Amino acid sequence: MFSPRFEQLVQALRTLPSVGPKSAQRMALHLVMKNREGAFQLAHALHEAATYIQSCHVCHSLSEDEICEICASPRRDDTVLCVVESPADVMAIEQSAGFNGKYYVLGGHLSPLDGIGPEEIGIPALIQRLKQGQVQEVILATNATIEGQATAHYILEACKTLPVSMTRIAQGVPQGGELEYVDSHTLSQALHHRMQLK
Amino acid sequence: MFSPRFEQLVQALRTLPSVGPKSAQRMALHLVMKNREGAFQLAHALHEAATYIQSCHVCHSLSEDEICEICASPRRDDTVLCVVESPADVMAIEQSAGFNGKYYVLGGHLSPLDGIGPEEIGIPALIQRLKQGQVQEVILATNATIEGQATAHYILEACKTLPVSMTRIAQGVPQGGELEYVDSHTLSQALHHRMQLK
Ligand SMILES: [Zn+2]
Ligand SMILES: [Zn+2]
Repeated sequence: MFSPRFEQLVQALRTLPSVGPKSAQRMALHLVMKNREGAFQLAHALHEAATYIQSCHVCHSLSEDEICEICASPRRDDTVLCVVESPADVMAIEQSAGFNGKYYVLGGHLSPLDGIGPEEIGIPALIQRLKQGQVQEVILATNATIEGQATAHYILEACKTLPVSMTRIAQGVPQGGELEYVDSHTLSQALHHRMQLK
Repeated sequence: MFSPRFEQLVQALRTLPSVGPKSAQRMALHLVMKNREGAFQLAHALHEAATYIQSCHVCHSLSEDEICEICASPRRDDTVLCVVESPADVMAIEQSAGFNGKYYVLGGHLSPLDGIGPEEIGIPALIQRLKQGQVQEVILATNATIEGQATAHYILEACKTLPVSMTRIAQGVPQGGELEYVDSHTLSQALHHRMQLK
């Protein structure tokens, strides 16, 4: 259609998550016909991001420097370490603005069938870090999925002998959640982990 | 979040049609974490398309050359000219594979309140082309919207004295459309324009 370069643009847009052939075509037409300046800007932003964004050497989150802003910040609490599966989780927690400690990004969860063991998600390095003694509490904030639970459980066992407090993010009914629409597994967990009020 | 370049990428992705803040963030994370090669390819494709794709000098559709493949093709019928609103319509008709004539892209429809008159959508140039005498039939394939209908009607009037057959794409019940779900305006049009079978 039209030109090889148009076709290449449609194909390249299709590699974006949840962009099908129709929306890729609509995006390409929009950029070429109505927002050519936007096309150049997006090209530049992609090139810059793909060139300069790396993994933080300390927490494995995303950063433009060897050490990310959070790890480098003297205003963040060094004694509390939140362990998450991915940089997207760091982003979500930061946007919720309820946490002032530091992070450790595993980059996935344990998945023996895919050959992803403790080594692949940086658990030995996490234990090394805990042995340095600065961290007093580890918050296990892996996903509330079967894999995330298993990964949290593995870390808990691996840190058994370390003098560090280990906690897990609360699981229960989401804010605003109406009980009749909450799935039964969540509901039974919420009952089991009920909180003492008085 | 993370880095200025990540933030710039999220902002640039948001200029794409129907991409909100959440999906822009998801796309940026996907590109940076899982498909950096794809990020470079998309950057390249955007830059190439925005640099080299232009309007065909004859039909005003999209092309990498001064004259597009369809206009330049000796195998396409020069005597039938299909008038559409946008290159997206050319694409849709070509994908339906039922047309072997040539196109004329208006680049919009008449919209007096927005200052878009006949000149702005190339109607005088269309009439000039028809006066050359090669075209025997003009198919008015503007949208079946109020504006598209008005634009088709204007062209019909403007070409009244030219020795050219003027047709309008059929309007009616879409293929597979169940009558009870078709809107009443479409249904009344479909009845009014009923076809003689026998
Ligand atoms: Zn870091
Ligand atoms: Zn052309």
